[in-house]
Amino acid sequence: MLFMAQMQVNLPPDMPAEIADKLKADEKALAQRLQREGKWAHLWRVAGRYANVSIFDVQDNDELHALLSSLPLFPYMDIQVTALARHPSAI
Amino acid sequence: MLFMAQMQVNLPPDMPAEIADKLKADEKALAQRLQREGKWAHLWRVAGRYANVSIFDVQDNDELHALLSSLPLFPYMDIQVTALARHPSAI
Amino acid sequence: MLFMAQMQVNLPPDMPAEIADKLKADEKALAQRLQREGKWAHLWRVAGRYANVSIFDVQDNDELHALLSSLPLFPYMDIQVTALARHPSAI
Amino acid sequence: MLFMAQMQVNLPPDMPAEIADKLKADEKALAQRLQREGKWAHLWRVAGRYANVSIFDVQDNDELHALLSSLPLFPYMDIQVTALARHPSAI
Amino acid sequence: MLFMAQMQVNLPPDMPAEIADKLKADEKALAQRLQREGKWAHLWRVAGRYANVSIFDVQDNDELHALLSSLPLFPYMDIQVTALARHPSAI
Amino acid sequence: MLFMAQMQVNLPPDMPAEIADKLKADEKALAQRLQREGKWAHLWRVAGRYANVSIFDVQDNDELHALLSSLPLFPYMDIQVTALARHPSAI
Amino acid sequence: MLFMAQMQVNLPPDMPAEIADKLKADEKALAQRLQREGKWAHLWRVAGRYANVSIFDVQDNDELHALLSSLPLFPYMDIQVTALARHPSAI
Amino acid sequence: MLFMAQMQVNLPPDMPAEIADKLKADEKALAQRLQREGKWAHLWRVAGRYANVSIFDVQDNDELHALLSSLPLFPYMDIQVTALARHPSAI
Amino acid sequence: MLFMAQMQVNLPPDMPAEIADKLKADEKALAQRLQREGKWAHLWRVAGRYANVSIFDVQDNDELHALLSSLPLFPYMDIQVTALARHPSAI
Amino acid sequence: MLFMAQMQVNLPPDMPAEIADKLKADEKALAQRLQREGKWAHLWRVAGRYANVSIFDVQDNDELHALLSSLPLFPYMDIQVTALARHPSAI
Repeated sequence: MLFMAQMQVNLPPDMPAEIADKLKADEKALAQRLQREGKWAHLWRVAGRYANVSIFDVQDNDELHALLSSLPLFPYMDIQVTALARHPSAI
Repeated sequence: MLFMAQMQVNLPPDMPAEIADKLKADEKALAQRLQREGKWAHLWRVAGRYANVSIFDVQDNDELHALLSSLPLFPYMDIQVTALARHPSAI
Repeated sequence: MLFMAQMQVNLPPDMPAEIADKLKADEKALAQRLQREGKWAHLWRVAGRYANVSIFDVQDNDELHALLSSLPLFPYMDIQVTALARHPSAI
Repeated sequence: MLFMAQMQVNLPPDMPAEIADKLKADEKALAQRLQREGKWAHLWRVAGRYANVSIFDVQDNDELHALLSSLPLFPYMDIQVTALARHPSAI
Repeated sequence: MLFMAQMQVNLPPDMPAEIADKLKADEKALAQRLQREGKWAHLWRVAGRYANVSIFDVQDNDELHALLSSLPLFPYMDIQVTALARHPSAI
Repeated sequence: MLFMAQMQVNLPPDMPAEIADKLKADEKALAQRLQREGKWAHLWRVAGRYANVSIFDVQDNDELHALLSSLPLFPYMDIQVTALARHPSAI
Repeated sequence: MLFMAQMQVNLPPDMPAEIADKLKADEKALAQRLQREGKWAHLWRVAGRYANVSIFDVQDNDELHALLSSLPLFPYMDIQVTALARHPSAI
Repeated sequence: MLFMAQMQVNLPPDMPAEIADKLKADEKALAQRLQREGKWAHLWRVAGRYANVSIFDVQDNDELHALLSSLPLFPYMDIQVTALARHPSAI
Repeated sequence: MLFMAQMQVNLPPDMPAEIADKLKADEKALAQRLQREGKWAHLWRVAGRYANVSIFDVQDNDELHALLSSLPLFPYMDIQVTALARHPSAI
Repeated sequence: MLFMAQMQVNLPPDMPAEIADKLKADEKALAQRLQREGKWAHLWRVAGRYANVSIFDVQDNDELHALLSSLPLFPYMDIQVTALARHPSAI
């Protein structure tokens, strides 16, 4: 089951660089693991913003929330979820 | 799996009364059938508006869209869907 | 009498973990007591957000405000209240 | 129990004058009756708009919705309801 | 002459409790004096929010602004003012 | 007492030219009379829009609403009113 | 080069069914041809709305606009385009 | 003096094709004349929308409004104007 | 050439009073000089807010920006500029 | 390929002046180099705001994002990107 998540990252401007770097490295590692597992189906950068458009392929809403709230950057992100259904014109 | 749907009905002010009445009767019949089947878990009126807050219990996003788009008033409604997950403090 | 409350939690990113943990534990304890008392009729997590959709069953507006403003996380939440009425198609 | 209702009237610009006049006369008659009954506690015009700010004093949400949806202009109004509670500084 | 003021209070989360308490006590004292003088005609709490809906009865815009900007909580409030006129259906 | 009114004119695209011309001529005549009387203190066009920014100098809110709602284009305008007070730095 | 297009379809409620059906059939045929050609990389339905989220893979902005404006439903759609870049964590 | 104008065209869906075509042809002829005269300095299409971003180089606000309101599509456009100044980093 | 500037002042709540007082005094001195020079044609307080509505009479956009960005409170203000043109009904 | 970027700069009010000055000097140097290289085609100040409207001429979305995210002020800017296509009336 697919969901679009639009994630905007808002790190505090005074966060020490080493903390930010650690958060980003952990986020990247988890994002790549979830992609390899097929849960994070697509991940695109929004041009000009510290934001992404993602497609998740999960069993249900609970798995989606568990996954998103486990992200290291979750406390610093504003996430909008859109439930996606099969489109009748999709091939 | 639960979803909240917030539905605002916008019937054209010049729609003939008999057409509107037929639509509403069909909508009511389907709404009640879906409630009895357990798909439409809750249905509340928003005080002061021709709108409702609804909770649906469906298998997945496709069933949710199939159900919502089958409603007789669907062409006249603006619907916002929110995916709901289990809350850790819910009993 | 039913009300929907949509609550978005905004904890300051620099709040010490022990304070946040204490607030959340107190919030959970109170939320569960209110659910057992039947006041907090439904509590759902919004997937992807530190937010919830809740249904309260209270005597009147004063009880609703007293209840919401007693929540430990109240100073950190943005709450939108919607008054709900019986829907003519509800069974 | 008090509620604020902010009502914006949007009559179609091509509504015949006699129909609009009839609607407004019926609306006025009902508004005045509800004021005399104490249900419609305050009614003010928003300066510069075909809109009002109203305070209703009703038993519960159901009575509020029944009252608002019975207004002749209801199909042409956008209404936003705010539940009001006693303020601790009110005398 | 009547005005509606919708006031949202936004105290900084790290304000010391004694300062907040002093501000609130001063605010309350002034609010009650202005109510007794008839300037602050109505004061209601918005259910679920640290906000109020107020009706002021003043001589003119200057008196309204002088009054609002003298409130101890003024630096921490977002205030929206609506000019109210007599409604033709008001009794 | 001064008020700013921001007026956006929305004439239906299918309004016959003669009706629109009559409305505009009547509006202009009244606008100029009110300017000569000192009620309509300033009238500026918003560049690029069928809209204006106006300053009115009236006795009170009731006179403001009576004036604005008497404008021939009133049924086709969206008007936002802002109450203005004397600025402490104004000379 | 990838773009997200969020398309909301707004057919006039009084459009004759045969015209709407023809538009939709033409839209579907073109959408499927563009998918087979690899231009329309993904096409998902937004649950609960007559809307879709699409990913296009085109040479440049001109090709994107030519493609979108050639859609039979283009005159009835509100489309928001987001330029997507490669995400550093994408695998 | 430069201004950005963001123009969204909203033709009524039921406008006869010959009228729309005539409007567009007239608009195009005027747009090209103004470009040749140097008044309409830049004209770009917003990808995916019947909208444009334009830069005008005019003597003053009055010339800008005269120019924009003379466009054949002006009655069908929503235009947002932004006054531009020289940027200290521009070369 | 006239422009409306709507200025909202947002001083940090923890700014020391002496710094705020100095800024305000400097702002007032400059505002009064610019009014005497005829550049700052009108200056009104928005009732209930730390905000103003101002009319500037300047040579061009560059002068407007130079003037606004020279204000001592500029770093703390959100300013919206509207280009004003002569209204055909103005006398 | 052209893109419009609307950039709003939000420097923290308590950023030390020397840090802000260094950031701005670096930003200016890079902005001027990119203009000389033809990548940053236009750069205008929004009158009254610490903001700009820019036109970029790049190979693709990836180059646009790489360029924007390399700006020294990027962590302090809110950037909205609009993909621009050739306008059929452009000469």
